[in-house]
Amino acid sequence: MSTTDLVTARASRRDFLRNSALLAATIPAGSALLSACSAEPKEKESAQTPVAPEKTAAQKADEMDAMHEAGIKSFPAKTAGKGNQVMTPRLDGHVQVYELTASEIDWESEPGKKVQAWAYNEQVPGPQIRVREGDRVRVILHNKLPESTAIHFHGLELPIDQDGVPFITQPPIKPGRSYTYEFTVPNSGSHMYHSHHNATMQVGKGLLGAFIVEPKNTASEPRADVDTVMILNDMTGFTLNGKGFPATEPIVAKLGQTVRIRFMNEGSMIHPMHLHGMHMTVIAKDGWMQPAPWKCDTLNVAPGERWDVIVKANNPGTWAFHCHILSHAESNHGMYGMVTALIVK
Amino acid sequence: MSTTDLVTARASRRDFLRNSALLAATIPAGSALLSACSAEPKEKESAQTPVAPEKTAAQKADEMDAMHEAGIKSFPAKTAGKGNQVMTPRLDGHVQVYELTASEIDWESEPGKKVQAWAYNEQVPGPQIRVREGDRVRVILHNKLPESTAIHFHGLELPIDQDGVPFITQPPIKPGRSYTYEFTVPNSGSHMYHSHHNATMQVGKGLLGAFIVEPKNTASEPRADVDTVMILNDMTGFTLNGKGFPATEPIVAKLGQTVRIRFMNEGSMIHPMHLHGMHMTVIAKDGWMQPAPWKCDTLNVAPGERWDVIVKANNPGTWAFHCHILSHAESNHGMYGMVTALIVK
Amino acid sequence: MSTTDLVTARASRRDFLRNSALLAATIPAGSALLSACSAEPKEKESAQTPVAPEKTAAQKADEMDAMHEAGIKSFPAKTAGKGNQVMTPRLDGHVQVYELTASEIDWESEPGKKVQAWAYNEQVPGPQIRVREGDRVRVILHNKLPESTAIHFHGLELPIDQDGVPFITQPPIKPGRSYTYEFTVPNSGSHMYHSHHNATMQVGKGLLGAFIVEPKNTASEPRADVDTVMILNDMTGFTLNGKGFPATEPIVAKLGQTVRIRFMNEGSMIHPMHLHGMHMTVIAKDGWMQPAPWKCDTLNVAPGERWDVIVKANNPGTWAFHCHILSHAESNHGMYGMVTALIVK
Repeated sequence: MSTTDLVTARASRRDFLRNSALLAATIPAGSALLSACSAEPKEKESAQTPVAPEKTAAQKADEMDAMHEAGIKSFPAKTAGKGNQVMTPRLDGHVQVYELTASEIDWESEPGKKVQAWAYNEQVPGPQIRVREGDRVRVILHNKLPESTAIHFHGLELPIDQDGVPFITQPPIKPGRSYTYEFTVPNSGSHMYHSHHNATMQVGKGLLGAFIVEPKNTASEPRADVDTVMILNDMTGFTLNGKGFPATEPIVAKLGQTVRIRFMNEGSMIHPMHLHGMHMTVIAKDGWMQPAPWKCDTLNVAPGERWDVIVKANNPGTWAFHCHILSHAESNHGMYGMVTALIVK
Repeated sequence: MSTTDLVTARASRRDFLRNSALLAATIPAGSALLSACSAEPKEKESAQTPVAPEKTAAQKADEMDAMHEAGIKSFPAKTAGKGNQVMTPRLDGHVQVYELTASEIDWESEPGKKVQAWAYNEQVPGPQIRVREGDRVRVILHNKLPESTAIHFHGLELPIDQDGVPFITQPPIKPGRSYTYEFTVPNSGSHMYHSHHNATMQVGKGLLGAFIVEPKNTASEPRADVDTVMILNDMTGFTLNGKGFPATEPIVAKLGQTVRIRFMNEGSMIHPMHLHGMHMTVIAKDGWMQPAPWKCDTLNVAPGERWDVIVKANNPGTWAFHCHILSHAESNHGMYGMVTALIVK
Repeated sequence: MSTTDLVTARASRRDFLRNSALLAATIPAGSALLSACSAEPKEKESAQTPVAPEKTAAQKADEMDAMHEAGIKSFPAKTAGKGNQVMTPRLDGHVQVYELTASEIDWESEPGKKVQAWAYNEQVPGPQIRVREGDRVRVILHNKLPESTAIHFHGLELPIDQDGVPFITQPPIKPGRSYTYEFTVPNSGSHMYHSHHNATMQVGKGLLGAFIVEPKNTASEPRADVDTVMILNDMTGFTLNGKGFPATEPIVAKLGQTVRIRFMNEGSMIHPMHLHGMHMTVIAKDGWMQPAPWKCDTLNVAPGERWDVIVKANNPGTWAFHCHILSHAESNHGMYGMVTALIVK
């Protein structure tokens, strides 16, 4: 059984259960569909049980389609919690102060699915930090986790003592303790912050967030009407900004507007993101402007990478926008995971 | 056991059996090689069994080499069925009409290996659709599958009602039903068409094909003497245009000719394609010309991506051309899967 | 369990044992930490055994941190053997002669961990061959392996009879036999040499090396004070130039110097290499200069690819430099595998 099969199998089972729940509201109890949802086959049937008639291909197709439809119709589905919220700093003189508390939480990554997450300020991804080149920034981390931790500002060219690698640039921040980073923001672009201690597990569980730096000279970058961040992850399910479809948030633009999307991969696999109906113009890699922008409709984003793209929203409709490793985006029970939409009104 | 190991192990076993069959024609029955081919070890040997002499390293090397040689000498091996055949449309006035029938077939992906596939017009990949920017095109899909389906034209910037995503842009096409797409081809380049319903399975089984759009203004693109499509897949075995080595088709060019290769990944893994003996000049990504062509000999193609390259066939010989994830291309029983050749005469 | 989990689990166990050994020197026998290191739980405890008090979260965090610290403090750790050593050829007139012997060896990939490797001249990677465009080169391979083999010069545009693919361009080189390649070096850049026979296994076990070709016209390339090769591998553990952290070798530069890094992936997975503190300017792909250099801090390197980058060493410190698939670089017992450092003094 290949990895893909394993992933698909797991996803199918989960979606099966989730979609069954979704469907339960709209389908009469005792219907063929619901009885098909008993996930474990019975080992033997009693002699008295009347034999159910074989389902026709048409019935099976209708049942599959109903599950697909239920997922799509519920999009965007409500879940508790929202990650990647832009954080307003406290001001200490000219210093912007961001206080982050790392703690263990339950995170609803899709409707009804709670995962045990480690989070900054109870958000997965953590709050979005958005500053300008040359700003003075203080980040205070309070560690309420059962392990030591530390923050690495991925992409920022900081002095070594602010780099966040325990035993190389600082001591680990022990459980119950706090630690203060402070620096002048050196380079613009789409960056990230995340744990750099026991990171496979800590980042995997959610200790990650976007660190966006506006350039001093905004003339060097294209103007965008909508500016959005899409953080890809695959370690607590396949998610975009901490949520799996149908709980992902669509990007919304008016016809003719310009949309900037900042892709960031905080997972452990590549995710080639495919936009329907319009192309993307790639303008920056890891916060650095590309020497010449180039166009695509499928952008391969590897772990640790950030890519900034511009989309001219010139084609009205609700456009699917998903990872093109299909098993990260769809199972036989419908779309799930790394799927969202660009809605052009 | 890593994924790579699993893949290799499976591949080895399959190749072992395949190559054993190939070799059976040339090796005397009862030889050491054939008796080595009993895949399952016996649990106990009878006391009467005469002890076979240990093979020397030289004998083992000769046996391995014979299996490698048999695969290469049979290239290109005959198999039933050929995918990606350029389709001639029927004309309805000025409209080019492509009729596609989706059905379940047995597909011979390598000599003697049949996989259950879902195919358009009994081809894997489906027939190649080749049109020009601005053409009026009608695609009629007849669904003879046991499931609903739909076609997404991956890379074409169509009106939303032609985008092929069930429950977002159209109803699913039920088993036994037909559906008609019709549009004016909006943008040139190397694109694809494939199912967008239960797609992990449906595309995985073969519901995919190339949709090539010539530009109106051909002056914007380099001239090519040979223009070829290479569709990468890994979901029903490792294949190029639906076949695994030695059943893959070589690309053939005369010395001095220019070859255009349109890579398309319809699988679930990256495939870094490596050409021996000559470099590739990358000219387009997802149908969009790159701002400046660049050179390589190994091109990483991710799922959903298309890359167009030009090769100057200036080095005579039969040049290996393969995925450089070696377990997708070779086992201890010889080359298999994503291997072909560029033959320069 | 996902592949990532499997990899992590295996890595954890290995690191656990390794780090336990490292720690044994500094921790009193019988301490809580050492007793925690007994990897297999006992099946039953004797009734007389006094019950150990539960460890507090703080104790557990201290123990984890101690393992992380031990790994880092031992960097760069000594191991037997060093791969990728620049080889001095013998001269036969104007021909540079490189003699390579392929044999089976034990290779210490990290402190105390020996893997069975197949190596050129008992080095993993094999000796670095470094020549100039237009040089006449002879490579003599002596095969002391139990299998046939052959050398492919990956990236060099050689005449077909020097391409190293058994049964296509040459016979396999049998165990105990020698074979001579000879050619005029046709194109400059960062290339590789490796087995092209039973290659999934033979390259996987270590039959690979760097083949660097300086250009005739050095004015076309940026000057570098430090010129280094980083060969990525994942088939006998996660390694950089044949060693896993903490046995990897740091790159060392003086403040203000220019460092050229030639990434080469000889493994079976992508490795997005992330440098802390400074960005990389990408100048070449597979030995071909990019039309316009571009900047990044995380560079995705796929199997078979080579990427050349320039780093301006303008930020003093010891900067982590690692694969950003975190499970290739860190476990809950500390950093391991594809981790090194760029030290700017």
